[in-house]
Amino acid sequence: MILDIINKKANKYELTKEELETILLGYLNDEVKDYQMSAFLMAICINDMSDSEVFALTDIFIKSGDVLDLSFIDEIKVDKHSTGGVGDKTTLIVAPLVASCNVPVIKMSGRGLGYTGGTIDKLESIPGFKVDLTEEEIKKQAEDIGIVITSQTKDLAPLDKKVYALRDVTATTNSIPLIASSIMSKKIAGGADKIVIDIKVGSGALIKTKEEAERLSSLLIKIGTYYQKEVRTVISNMDRPLGHNIGNKLEVLEAIDVLKGNVKGELLNLSLELATKMVSMGKGISEEEAMKEVKENLENGKALNKFIEFVKYQHGNIEELEINAKVYNIKANKSGSLKDINALSIAKLSESLGAGRKSKDDEIDYNAGVIIKKEIGNEIKEGDVLASLYTNIDNPNFNLERIFEIS
Amino acid sequence: MILDIINKKANKYELTKEELETILLGYLNDEVKDYQMSAFLMAICINDMSDSEVFALTDIFIKSGDVLDLSFIDEIKVDKHSTGGVGDKTTLIVAPLVASCNVPVIKMSGRGLGYTGGTIDKLESIPGFKVDLTEEEIKKQAEDIGIVITSQTKDLAPLDKKVYALRDVTATTNSIPLIASSIMSKKIAGGADKIVIDIKVGSGALIKTKEEAERLSSLLIKIGTYYQKEVRTVISNMDRPLGHNIGNKLEVLEAIDVLKGNVKGELLNLSLELATKMVSMGKGISEEEAMKEVKENLENGKALNKFIEFVKYQHGNIEELEINAKVYNIKANKSGSLKDINALSIAKLSESLGAGRKSKDDEIDYNAGVIIKKEIGNEIKEGDVLASLYTNIDNPNFNLERIFEIS
Repeated sequence: MILDIINKKANKYELTKEELETILLGYLNDEVKDYQMSAFLMAICINDMSDSEVFALTDIFIKSGDVLDLSFIDEIKVDKHSTGGVGDKTTLIVAPLVASCNVPVIKMSGRGLGYTGGTIDKLESIPGFKVDLTEEEIKKQAEDIGIVITSQTKDLAPLDKKVYALRDVTATTNSIPLIASSIMSKKIAGGADKIVIDIKVGSGALIKTKEEAERLSSLLIKIGTYYQKEVRTVISNMDRPLGHNIGNKLEVLEAIDVLKGNVKGELLNLSLELATKMVSMGKGISEEEAMKEVKENLENGKALNKFIEFVKYQHGNIEELEINAKVYNIKANKSGSLKDINALSIAKLSESLGAGRKSKDDEIDYNAGVIIKKEIGNEIKEGDVLASLYTNIDNPNFNLERIFEIS
Repeated sequence: MILDIINKKANKYELTKEELETILLGYLNDEVKDYQMSAFLMAICINDMSDSEVFALTDIFIKSGDVLDLSFIDEIKVDKHSTGGVGDKTTLIVAPLVASCNVPVIKMSGRGLGYTGGTIDKLESIPGFKVDLTEEEIKKQAEDIGIVITSQTKDLAPLDKKVYALRDVTATTNSIPLIASSIMSKKIAGGADKIVIDIKVGSGALIKTKEEAERLSSLLIKIGTYYQKEVRTVISNMDRPLGHNIGNKLEVLEAIDVLKGNVKGELLNLSLELATKMVSMGKGISEEEAMKEVKENLENGKALNKFIEFVKYQHGNIEELEINAKVYNIKANKSGSLKDINALSIAKLSESLGAGRKSKDDEIDYNAGVIIKKEIGNEIKEGDVLASLYTNIDNPNFNLERIFEIS
């Protein structure tokens, strides 16, 4: 029976919801083995899925666990998701910006597994910050200040988690239907009414081409429609890191700088775009109107004040946010123009400095990371500092040519 | 590294021999996990392999174990392989027929796993027959009578065995390159100089279409050329069982009947064709000349005598070959013309009667099996006996309509 289902997908036939349930719930119950599921996932990666297969898969993921009930808040709940990029600290900027516009943000976020930390890791790098809130605490905080970011209290889409872990070790991550159903099942189980999704595309992202990003965008919106949850997407570049700072505490510092109005460029622009869509959806106003409000609240300091209020409410102490690490500089070994900064190489470097975790029990050094000192297009002189490395590891290794292209 | 290799195949790129070695030898050493290998095998099933990938894979399989040295025999060693069919007892007919033409047949054969027994199981159903010969015994018997059929003494292509077992439980059996490299690695490790391969095609076989059979045939010949081993193929039908008898002892009895000249039809014709190719290759004569010699030796009783000599040499006692089982008849429930006999249903029935094994420790009832009493095209009257079931199980179950189509 299981072999028939795998075989059907291997031969490019569409599966019924019952067939998908048989194999996936069988996997959740350990009746279907890892080696059978991985063959099935590979068949999906190569042969794709129809829209109705993706809807069915998303449904099976959602129903495998708890679904959060955020109905205690009357307003529309807008969530934000990113497919993952290097130096992506937009949640830290966007959440207070949106909340300052009176659109509530209640976000369950995860720890990072990979080269850099997740939003929860970044927040935990703030001394005292409490990430594991009870349901009562979430409710009270949402009512009091309209912004909560907490680690997952409930078991959301556990089947997605199990499948994802297998995909990670079997070269079956690269599938638009699998990515779409994984994202949407977690967001829907997380109780959001409307969702903005930042699709990263480029050499430093899972999605490498514009075409794949557009397919993913269209599929995410379709799944949203199926669940009557409005989805809007932003497709943003991830050939290079987002912003200058990579590493948990360093990213919090850069986010604060953005909220203070000290930073221009891609990180600011993307944050404004994401916040605009969230406010537009949350208030049911045009994106033009929303953008105006968002920009105002950045300029008048309301967004920064909301961030400070939020951190304080969750017991964080921004004043104590300082980097305790040794600094090493990467200096240019020749003169020329800075052509490229490789996101993936920066991410791997950052992990090697202590900023990421390879397995879920690894400890992160919140102080570790990289600050990029030059922009693409800058004229570089031999000996110029291209980046500063923050780490508690002695004499960190790096390969200058892999990270910076000067010509 | 392993993930990069899987990913490369998933994205339809050609793998180098080094990459294939890395993943496959890694699997042999348990460094590559079952769930990674099954994802890789599924990628091969869907995305196919180039000829040079297939040559490399075959080579890796061969080198994973022992290679038999049959050089103690001066003559050309011709082996025969069948891709597996229901009621296929041709080896029992062809081997003595070819040996009677003075072409030596030294065959390492396996036990069957599946619905029906393998050649070794069939021979073991002859009381006293000894299947596990030492190298010394094989050598002496080959010199004395020119025919030996023995179970595998050495560890031939163990990696193929490990991969095959995984394919069996992950719906990755259906791949022409995987089938071809599996067959050829075992045959080449078995020491053959020239090989005749009977490719079964039809509803009762792994290969379902003529096109696939032709692709397999062409690939087997190419692998042979790569190893300077001449390969000839026969493509034969497996929509219906081959011959009338299915089950170990019953098949030996039918083989003897063919050697006695009592049986006409497909089983005889296929046996003659296979024997002809083997004699032609072994003696370096035309197939016309070889066919003449083969037919003569069937008619003049030399083939039968060689069979009797062979069985006796391996301590078998043909006189004691009798069926000890209860007989149940399947009778027609309506009148009409016999349109079809379903090979797969007969195979499953035969297994349920005790003639096959599901796992390698199961015991076979050598007496169990089925004798089909009618031919396709026969006019059937209600109540006619369509088949006799031999079994030591009480009141065996069968589904008449699944096996026989009368209209």
